[in-house]
Amino acid sequence: MGIEIERKFLLSSDAWRSQVSRSQRMVQGYLVTAAAVTSGAAKSSVRVRVAGDQAWLNIKSSTLGVERLEFEYAVPLVDAETLLARLCDGVVEKIRHYVAHAGHEFEVDEFFGDNDGLVVAELELNSVNESFEKPDWLGREVTSHARYYNLNLVKHPYAAWSAAEREGQD
Amino acid sequence: MGIEIERKFLLSSDAWRSQVSRSQRMVQGYLVTAAAVTSGAAKSSVRVRVAGDQAWLNIKSSTLGVERLEFEYAVPLVDAETLLARLCDGVVEKIRHYVAHAGHEFEVDEFFGDNDGLVVAELELNSVNESFEKPDWLGREVTSHARYYNLNLVKHPYAAWSAAEREGQD
Repeated sequence: MGIEIERKFLLSSDAWRSQVSRSQRMVQGYLVTAAAVTSGAAKSSVRVRVAGDQAWLNIKSSTLGVERLEFEYAVPLVDAETLLARLCDGVVEKIRHYVAHAGHEFEVDEFFGDNDGLVVAELELNSVNESFEKPDWLGREVTSHARYYNLNLVKHPYAAWSAAEREGQD
Repeated sequence: MGIEIERKFLLSSDAWRSQVSRSQRMVQGYLVTAAAVTSGAAKSSVRVRVAGDQAWLNIKSSTLGVERLEFEYAVPLVDAETLLARLCDGVVEKIRHYVAHAGHEFEVDEFFGDNDGLVVAELELNSVNESFEKPDWLGREVTSHARYYNLNLVKHPYAAWSAAEREGQD
């Protein structure tokens, strides 16, 4: 169990690519739809993720914003694949790039499939007010925009976003 | 991962009490409401259970009937207690009694709180058609009645059941 404190940003250029230390393909799905979370029928998202030959279950409180309660457990790969295929309603596919910058590690998620074209940088912090040095390639912050949540990308993928949504208007 | 094949019965008498080998108090809650499962917003229930000083996460496909896809993972007790308190919408409390009979083990759940008075015997089988010897104290089968699902007992507890529901009419 932990408190996840995370901020999300768009990318203002491709310059981050030269700083990538490692990359990993991930497929993830959710046992609860975004609609159930939004309506209050669930107070958390329940995520299944496969990354390489490893897999995890993740439970995250559905509060919108920087700070969320988070639980994560390793599960057998075969279980995760069955959960994704049988009990999830769609998946999100991405490559996660790990990018070190001035003592912090950014996770840059490059999405595929129906979310092709979307790239989001995430930064985990130890406290809400922790400061960090912004790299030149870091763009506008989107932490408070629900549509960037991976959970929401399953049913409202980037391919279906309006021009206003892509430009960051709400 | 496994396939759970389970049948549920009411009790026709208290005679099972003399055959109890051990009993354990359990508290459990769900990360997804029954309404979300019923509406199809989730294809599975996600249960958090504390029994003694141990705890588990359990994912079960929401198909109604004897056979369900099931996944279960041990989790730290402190995690489970936080999940129950913060991310579940109510809990079900019961004592589970283990009752051996003619080569099978029945689990007799005696409920408390808002479900006080409800007692249900469950039997796990290896195949849908596996036969077993019915003890004299075993009553009517309720496997196909959704209201006996622990998930549903959170929001529609036994205390709120109509006379028709208690008598087994649908």
